[in-house]
Amino acid sequence: MKTIYTKEEFSQFVDEVEREQGYRRAIGFGICRVDLGQKNPNKVLQATYPVINWKENYGTLAVFVKALQESGASIDFSQSELVYSITPTFIEAVLKKFTPFIAEAKGDKHKNIQVVDKLKNRPDLHLFRLVFIFEDAPLKSVEATYLKLYALSQRKADLRSLNLDGAFGVLHNVAWSGNKPYELDWLRDNEIELKIFNMYPNIDAVDKFPRFLQHVIPDDNIRILDSSKVRMGARLAPGTTIMPGASYINFNAGTTGASMVEGRISSSAIVGDGSDIGGGASILGVLSGTNGNPISIGKNTLLGANSVCGIPLGDGCIIDAGLAILEGTKITISEEELAKLREINPDLPNKRVFKGRELAGINGAHFRQNSETGQIVAFRSKREVKLNQELH
Amino acid sequence: MKTIYTKEEFSQFVDEVEREQGYRRAIGFGICRVDLGQKNPNKVLQATYPVINWKENYGTLAVFVKALQESGASIDFSQSELVYSITPTFIEAVLKKFTPFIAEAKGDKHKNIQVVDKLKNRPDLHLFRLVFIFEDAPLKSVEATYLKLYALSQRKADLRSLNLDGAFGVLHNVAWSGNKPYELDWLRDNEIELKIFNMYPNIDAVDKFPRFLQHVIPDDNIRILDSSKVRMGARLAPGTTIMPGASYINFNAGTTGASMVEGRISSSAIVGDGSDIGGGASILGVLSGTNGNPISIGKNTLLGANSVCGIPLGDGCIIDAGLAILEGTKITISEEELAKLREINPDLPNKRVFKGRELAGINGAHFRQNSETGQIVAFRSKREVKLNQELH
Amino acid sequence: MKTIYTKEEFSQFVDEVEREQGYRRAIGFGICRVDLGQKNPNKVLQATYPVINWKENYGTLAVFVKALQESGASIDFSQSELVYSITPTFIEAVLKKFTPFIAEAKGDKHKNIQVVDKLKNRPDLHLFRLVFIFEDAPLKSVEATYLKLYALSQRKADLRSLNLDGAFGVLHNVAWSGNKPYELDWLRDNEIELKIFNMYPNIDAVDKFPRFLQHVIPDDNIRILDSSKVRMGARLAPGTTIMPGASYINFNAGTTGASMVEGRISSSAIVGDGSDIGGGASILGVLSGTNGNPISIGKNTLLGANSVCGIPLGDGCIIDAGLAILEGTKITISEEELAKLREINPDLPNKRVFKGRELAGINGAHFRQNSETGQIVAFRSKREVKLNQELH
Repeated sequence: MKTIYTKEEFSQFVDEVEREQGYRRAIGFGICRVDLGQKNPNKVLQATYPVINWKENYGTLAVFVKALQESGASIDFSQSELVYSITPTFIEAVLKKFTPFIAEAKGDKHKNIQVVDKLKNRPDLHLFRLVFIFEDAPLKSVEATYLKLYALSQRKADLRSLNLDGAFGVLHNVAWSGNKPYELDWLRDNEIELKIFNMYPNIDAVDKFPRFLQHVIPDDNIRILDSSKVRMGARLAPGTTIMPGASYINFNAGTTGASMVEGRISSSAIVGDGSDIGGGASILGVLSGTNGNPISIGKNTLLGANSVCGIPLGDGCIIDAGLAILEGTKITISEEELAKLREINPDLPNKRVFKGRELAGINGAHFRQNSETGQIVAFRSKREVKLNQELH
Repeated sequence: MKTIYTKEEFSQFVDEVEREQGYRRAIGFGICRVDLGQKNPNKVLQATYPVINWKENYGTLAVFVKALQESGASIDFSQSELVYSITPTFIEAVLKKFTPFIAEAKGDKHKNIQVVDKLKNRPDLHLFRLVFIFEDAPLKSVEATYLKLYALSQRKADLRSLNLDGAFGVLHNVAWSGNKPYELDWLRDNEIELKIFNMYPNIDAVDKFPRFLQHVIPDDNIRILDSSKVRMGARLAPGTTIMPGASYINFNAGTTGASMVEGRISSSAIVGDGSDIGGGASILGVLSGTNGNPISIGKNTLLGANSVCGIPLGDGCIIDAGLAILEGTKITISEEELAKLREINPDLPNKRVFKGRELAGINGAHFRQNSETGQIVAFRSKREVKLNQELH
Repeated sequence: MKTIYTKEEFSQFVDEVEREQGYRRAIGFGICRVDLGQKNPNKVLQATYPVINWKENYGTLAVFVKALQESGASIDFSQSELVYSITPTFIEAVLKKFTPFIAEAKGDKHKNIQVVDKLKNRPDLHLFRLVFIFEDAPLKSVEATYLKLYALSQRKADLRSLNLDGAFGVLHNVAWSGNKPYELDWLRDNEIELKIFNMYPNIDAVDKFPRFLQHVIPDDNIRILDSSKVRMGARLAPGTTIMPGASYINFNAGTTGASMVEGRISSSAIVGDGSDIGGGASILGVLSGTNGNPISIGKNTLLGANSVCGIPLGDGCIIDAGLAILEGTKITISEEELAKLREINPDLPNKRVFKGRELAGINGAHFRQNSETGQIVAFRSKREVKLNQELH
């Protein structure tokens, strides 16, 4: 078991490990604590990461790989993901290699070292796992699924950038009591005793996914007024507020800039900076009404209260309160307003009636239902539009 | 106090009891643990049943009746419901009769015996009650009210099949902290002390009803992403998912097949297999806008996001996102589309404009607002409709 | 340190204090327990009041002022608000002045004395503060902000009657775990340890404001089915029910009479007695679509499911389910219906088409979209309207 004494030696060590035959950098890796099934202890119900690494910290990765090998494990780098139990030998091997950094591993520095250091002599070491994702392939383990959800929610990976296939198959449906997951089967087996002894747990939710706030500490200027409203795997940009009325942000969906969210951002939907999702507004998701086309909403766009948005929108748009703009909605645009809209949407064809899907990605459009005729129209909104420079 | 030694003897015993003068089978019965008022210990705030019996387990019922009588209680079978305190004598008498079954009473077998067995020697026996419902009449006790709510939520009784009159009068409005109910009066009396000593409870809700997940363990393939969204007394079929955005399922309402629920299923409303209640969609309840007519939604029907449904619908219907179809809404159907709709709705009269209530129960109708004219129309939906065989 | 022995002496003492040079009655005052930052103990994260005084209990105020002075503090009555630490000397001085009342200070009587009495010999006395608001000016302290929120939520001050400027600047954004606030920074600093030791707190919300039910005990006939739905600073009149679907009541908003709320009452919006805010209905707030004009809804008015209300409404109105009435919505009224509406709205001009804002405050109007023409119309509703006597 190799001990490293200086930072220079450490760099050299990492270089050597990375040059070894078959070595492959992981996309993501980290050490997690798992919750195991109360009835079936082979079931992993949840994985909690104190720290994740995503396309970063390759020196630590080399240390973890080498320490695993020194503790007797073999690593098949051709796998898309791997999960290892943490052993005392692994911990010892890791810390010997990090010798020159241990003194400074505190606060924001060297968080992976802090994690390993805290694992020394723990009686519950069997609950800790080292997880690698080498390839962004369909998911095979609960631990790797959580690693990807963390990457999304900690904004280390972009929304829609990861392969989440298999997540619903891998994750178990459990009863959540605070941060603690319970197997439903275990509850059933013990219902009589738990109820008679007044120890039945207080269940907050039954779901395969945990909530965002069970795992992620938001930025100082993010507000989430009800934790049930944001699923783990969602992304919230700084400045985002999630109100508790009718809002919901699913996994692999969220905001990329400051925004006020009082409505639903369904799976795979993305909302840009300065946009406002009004009370009860719905952005349809890939599984509900968009024919699988994920919806992006640009910057500075407003979805009015109880509106429904079934098409992607660019910057500076408005859908009036209560109005639904779907792929098949026929929208009339007057000649005069079309001219104004073409100034910022040069590709717009010259006609009077558009289907919603033909306006996908439009900038600066205000959608309204004429309250005298019932006709749905679009016209140039008065909201500021930041023109996409690539278009001009 | 009679002891029974063999299963044959047990059958004979049950026959004898059932033939006794005045004996009457209960519709439902069970033993519950009650939470009593902190200020007024005569108030029952909640009743928790480890096991309920609903039109079943009449042998156990005979044992309970006889054991009660042997412990000195008299039973007036003409009452609609009865509540008895559990005594050590009752427990002893019950277990003596169940002698031939006690060894096998574990896991899923003989759950009532498990309950009674666990009550032996308990110091808090005064909190346990034996409850009978002999007749489905207006409710008189908290314990019987919970028994009916359990019957609905455990799918032992059909939605709308039980008399729930009196429930609001019988149940107390309490502050729920997790599974524990507090009397509001007690909180008021102790507010100063609780706040100064930093012991003020964390209140999740103030309501007469508890939440579904406080009492019922859902099937493995049911998901409830926020426990506040389903009231005790609701029914959820296997495969049902309740999202946390704007959804709500009231008591005596719910689903009878797998369905995705992101909207509101108001009191007495029922949703069929394969149907989808979109984000923010509202099904009106008997107390809100349906003139007391409860709404059923058939199979494979879709209520779009933020739609409102004020009439019963059959199978394979669609209400477009954002659209409200109420009893008084005028809906135009073209001659051609009416012909298609009459193929699967033979009773539909031949006319052009229908009030919503005239289309109650229609199959295969797609409701839309024409976005050029504002006219609300219905036409044959492309969703699969499973024809009701009784109609043809 | 002056001791007072009789009630007569007490009255004389209060008179003397109130006549002292520079003395000024506080609008509100009270003693609170504070939660301090885990990382920065100079940050006040929350203030919990066992009792508040609002334009009342001036005798107690005089005692508190004099006891503060006797314990060495000086009071600058020209400040809009002041916050003092509680000291053993202050407690002693207060109780000496309240001697003739101490024996009867229990239950509902002399709650301020009960508070001070319970503070004797407490080891955590540094967490208690005496707070005065002398002038309804922009807020400067967390303690005074909570005092105003209590005044609103305990219905001691009217909605919109208080200056809440500065509240968002003064309050810290914290993670709430039950009633306990955590600094986000502290969670970040301790994330590794908390997660490895399985002590990560269960976070219910991240917000500057707590929830109503963390601080206020509602009347017996108020129901709040989900605590996340009502922010501290909201007002709920007796008889109000808040359903858990899509509802939300923001601070400085609420109900002034019994009402059923299944929708959103945004900041500064007020709903009158007997009104019904249907499932998913939105009343726009001062920050969202009303150009800063706060919306009041009168008595006996119904907002249908998923409707949107962007204008003030009087008594006995109906907005149909799914309909949005905004300031700019054009609403057509027939000559016949206008005549009926003018009977109870004499100032209504004689024309056919109104903008929504021109109908602000209207009584007895039923808003509907004609489902054959798409035209939005108003007509005389059949709901009872209690005429405003001042108009006639």
